[in-house]
Amino acid sequence: MDIESRLAETADRVTVALDALLPRAVGPEARLLSAMRYAALGGGKRLRPFFTLESGRLFDADETALLRTAAALECIHTFSLIHDDLPCMDDDDLRRGQPTVHKEFDEATALLAGDALLAFAFEILADPATHPDPQMRCKLVAGLARATGPQGMIAGQALDMLGSEMSSDLIAITRMNRLKTGALISFSVEAGCLIACAPEDAKHALVRYANDLGLAFQMADDLLDAEGRAEEMGKAAQKDARAGKVNFVTVLGEEAARARVRLLATQAKGHLAQFGPRAKLLTQAVDFVLDRRY
Amino acid sequence: MDIESRLAETADRVTVALDALLPRAVGPEARLLSAMRYAALGGGKRLRPFFTLESGRLFDADETALLRTAAALECIHTFSLIHDDLPCMDDDDLRRGQPTVHKEFDEATALLAGDALLAFAFEILADPATHPDPQMRCKLVAGLARATGPQGMIAGQALDMLGSEMSSDLIAITRMNRLKTGALISFSVEAGCLIACAPEDAKHALVRYANDLGLAFQMADDLLDAEGRAEEMGKAAQKDARAGKVNFVTVLGEEAARARVRLLATQAKGHLAQFGPRAKLLTQAVDFVLDRRY
Repeated sequence: MDIESRLAETADRVTVALDALLPRAVGPEARLLSAMRYAALGGGKRLRPFFTLESGRLFDADETALLRTAAALECIHTFSLIHDDLPCMDDDDLRRGQPTVHKEFDEATALLAGDALLAFAFEILADPATHPDPQMRCKLVAGLARATGPQGMIAGQALDMLGSEMSSDLIAITRMNRLKTGALISFSVEAGCLIACAPEDAKHALVRYANDLGLAFQMADDLLDAEGRAEEMGKAAQKDARAGKVNFVTVLGEEAARARVRLLATQAKGHLAQFGPRAKLLTQAVDFVLDRRY
Repeated sequence: MDIESRLAETADRVTVALDALLPRAVGPEARLLSAMRYAALGGGKRLRPFFTLESGRLFDADETALLRTAAALECIHTFSLIHDDLPCMDDDDLRRGQPTVHKEFDEATALLAGDALLAFAFEILADPATHPDPQMRCKLVAGLARATGPQGMIAGQALDMLGSEMSSDLIAITRMNRLKTGALISFSVEAGCLIACAPEDAKHALVRYANDLGLAFQMADDLLDAEGRAEEMGKAAQKDARAGKVNFVTVLGEEAARARVRLLATQAKGHLAQFGPRAKLLTQAVDFVLDRRY
């Protein structure tokens, strides 16, 4: 199977899983539940689920555990997008070419739908249906909470909001991105390894792969933003420059950023060498994810 | 020890525990971390921690497990207050007589501080320091997630936001309050019982106690709001009436609401009968919590 088909298949499986896991949008709180479903089932590349599933499959991990964990990760990712789009944050009207949750519903509903998805991710992971071993479920909960919370993704979002107040050196921007997008991408790979009880050195190689790819992905996103192709992005472009925000492109310049994306891509693939042809899809994912972007 | 001293002691212990658990407010994300600490350490009655500690103590449960679980519950409660106060929700400037988080910091920081406290609660619970048995930690995570998420407190907040669109009958308002405040209060008692491995019938009696007290507490709060004593509440009063929201007082009238608070208080104490004098503090808590309110 090639990478494109596998990504499409993964996206389908995760969407079907989320559809089954999320409460039906009925009863007095239908508006909240509809907003959660609108955001969680409305598409997206499902890259984090792909990383969890493919890392776990390298070591023949249980598919149900991988899929439910992937669904929990996607709940967290979706929550972060809903809150990021709110007027007090990035104030975006479009996401994946569709109205953002607060535009389609209202601000209070968007706020609460994000909150509910955040809590729901942990409900999924703590459920014995995710994995029979409670020790494993605790590790997944602890890992996801750390990757999400005040020393993970949310810290990255807070740094991003500092805008021009943030140090504009490469180290600060790299750290911000490692938190904002890197923490969850790294955990998506780590979760697959945890479920598979993968050897430590294999896990470290895969986490390094995720770190490099995550950083390259963010740089590519900053390049897209700078080039301002709103249509291609399915959301508003050149937001960073207009908001006076620093990012990889404002600090490095377009050419150096592009060179760095290429370097990180090569490095990411290098970490997979030890897995041989079994890691073919993860290797192909690097070019696929970054393809039209550098 | 009398109820007043015990509540004060519990509040101190929980504040000390949270102070130790929450990340220091240093580094580039100091603003986010300061906002979390401002909200979580800035007082409050710490009723939920009191319920967890006292329920667990009825069966001599481990104090560390109770205290860490109480701290996690308080993180969730604090998150809900921060988000409830935001402009797109209740739009409150004061909480416990102090500026709300978005007033003291800014909206984006308040949003993210709430998010971070929500995630952090699960980080605390999943940590082996909370309880040596991973099965127990999973039960606590699952229970807290359910009490918080799309079928718990957050659903109640969503119903509350419907305002005049919500059915204005007593059943609908009772359900809204059972979700909005009842779910977390009930779980605070249930968590103490879980950690103590309390017998099922004892747990059920204590959860019924919490349900009745939670409902009475909310009715008393609606009465306070109707009487409009902003000073006493440390926050804006008569918000519901002005916002066209239905609550127990708008549906039942003041007199009937007051009678119902008294009935629920008696009923709550009745559930404790089987525990004899050991439940003295939980019994006293009913009058103390509702004292100046009916």
